[in-house]
Formats: sequence, structure tokens, C-alpha cells
Amino acid sequence: MRKNSELFTLTYGALVTQLCKDYENDEEVNKQLDKMGYNIGVRLIEDFLARSSIGRCQDFRETADVIAKVAFKMYLGTTPSVTNWSPAGDEFSLILENNPLVDFVELPDNHNTLIYSNLLCGVLRGALEMVQMAVDVRFVQDTLRGDNVTEIRMKFIKRIEENLPAGDE
Amino acid sequence: MRKNSELFTLTYGALVTQLCKDYENDEEVNKQLDKMGYNIGVRLIEDFLARSSIGRCQDFRETADVIAKVAFKMYLGTTPSVTNWSPAGDEFSLILENNPLVDFVELPDNHNTLIYSNLLCGVLRGALEMVQMAVDVRFVQDTLRGDNVTEIRMKFIKRIEENLPAGDE
Repeated sequence: MRKNSELFTLTYGALVTQLCKDYENDEEVNKQLDKMGYNIGVRLIEDFLARSSIGRCQDFRETADVIAKVAFKMYLGTTPSVTNWSPAGDEFSLILENNPLVDFVELPDNHNTLIYSNLLCGVLRGALEMVQMAVDVRFVQDTLRGDNVTEIRMKFIKRIEENLPAGDE
Repeated sequence: MRKNSELFTLTYGALVTQLCKDYENDEEVNKQLDKMGYNIGVRLIEDFLARSSIGRCQDFRETADVIAKVAFKMYLGTTPSVTNWSPAGDEFSLILENNPLVDFVELPDNHNTLIYSNLLCGVLRGALEMVQMAVDVRFVQDTLRGDNVTEIRMKFIKRIEENLPAGDE
């Protein structure tokens, strides 16, 4: 399914390496990656909606399917499985058997709290915020840290009201 | 031809933005992008040779065609034209009508000497060095700076001798 994303993968690696030089510790790098991802997500959503012709999701389950089957496929060439739903239906996991961002990557010993792919959490958070969904997104398993799969946990927080700023038309 | 590289494009933008924060002036950022690209190129070549099944090029003209028609297509989804050959056949230009790296990008006024896509020059230089070709690669036109097209100029410098390090088998 994947094809020819190595240039992206290596460029992403250069970004993470640069941030590791710039910031004192892994937590700062993780935070920075999330923030960058957020800024990317708020711009990417427009492209996504235009390309996918997908309308408003009826519920969080539909949102989960669209993220896994359309968005991940479109931008990363991989389709995670959607699983581990909370009983209330407000939390699920995306399980990535292959995470294209980590090809060629090994974490050095002095970066064992680095969440290497944390940009993705920010992207998801930013993109969903633009369609009025506040979500919490974080990695709970990572093959880079020795887990068997990579697992991103997503929790629905609230629907954001569409407030028009005063004075805007 | 292009598809779904927006996540890459925006991630590349985050990298350039970060470097602009980190370094004092555009020249330093340009240098850093070239250096990062070089490191990417020396790793990417292996993937490229494996995927493309392309063997040793007979001459610089063949190299030019492979870069434009196979490599750019594979990794950036665009095929630049090869043109402006020097009479000696040691220099040519790649003309990109579309540079996927610069979608959504506008250079701020205070970065008018930034060579935004300079990573690409480094990638080409690094990759070719691994197949024993020393080349000089630089942008001579850039749509970001108001030119009609983006032009990368490549000059063959020399064939690198394959010296086996003393003591290696």
C-alpha cells in the first residue's frame, strides 16, 4: 500500500533531530512536535475535506472510521485498525501495524522518553478542532520503544460551539 | 500527477520555520537545509536503486533523465523537464513547473534570500555522491521569489574514485 514516502520519512527524521538539538529534554520536543502538528492539522483539514468529499460525521464512530480508512490512507499510505472502544463510545485506539514515519529509525538511549511521531497527535487534534471537535490524542504504545504495535488513543472531549466573533459578518 | 503530499509539504514547512528560528540569517538556513538534504540523499539512494531497479548510468545525460523522470516522479510526484545543456554536456537545468514543496508558502519580506527548497539540492548532491558522482547543485530560479518557474542547475564536477579504505576487506 505504501509507496515512496521515504523522502517524507527522512525529512521528518531531520525535523525531529533538529528539535532534539534545540530543546533541552524529550518532553519539550514532544510538546513542540504536538504544537507543530496542531498547526499542520488546522491547515490540512481543508485539503482533506476537499479531496475526500466527506461531509459531517454523524458520531464519533464514523469519525474514527474516516480517520483510519480515509485520512491515514491518504496521507500516510497506511490504514490503522480502529479498536478498544470505551463503553461510552467516547474513546478508541488506532493501531498501526506499520508506522511509515519510523522506517529507518532507532531511538538513541538518551532519548527514551521521546515520542518520536508525536506530530501525528497534533495533526489529528488540530484537524478535528476545525470541524468543531475537541479531542485528546496521545501515543500509548510505540514500536520504537519496544511495543509490538503503535497505538494512538483518541478521546472525545466536547463539541466546540461555532461562535462567530463579534463584528464579523 | 501529484497526490496527497500535503502532509509532507506542511511538515517541510515546519522544518524550514524551525530553522529560521534557530539560525541568524537566511544563508545559515540555506546551508543547513543543504546539509540535511545531503544526509537524506546518502540514505535515500539505496531505497531509490532498490525500487527503480536502475543500473549505472552511461553518461550525465542519462543521469539527468533518471533524476527527472524516475526520481522526482517517485518522491515528489512531479516530472521536471531537463534543459539548458551546456555545450560540454556537463551542466543542465531541471525546470519545475510545480514544486510541491512550496504549496501554501509565501516568503515573508524579511526572508528574501531564503532558498526555501534548498533541501532538494542537498538530497541530489548526497544521492549522486553515493553513486560516485560529485555534482554542484543549486537553485537559479524560484517561483517563491517571483520567477516564472523553479530551476535547479546541476553541474558535473568529477567522478569519485572508489577507494577501498586501507585494511577493509
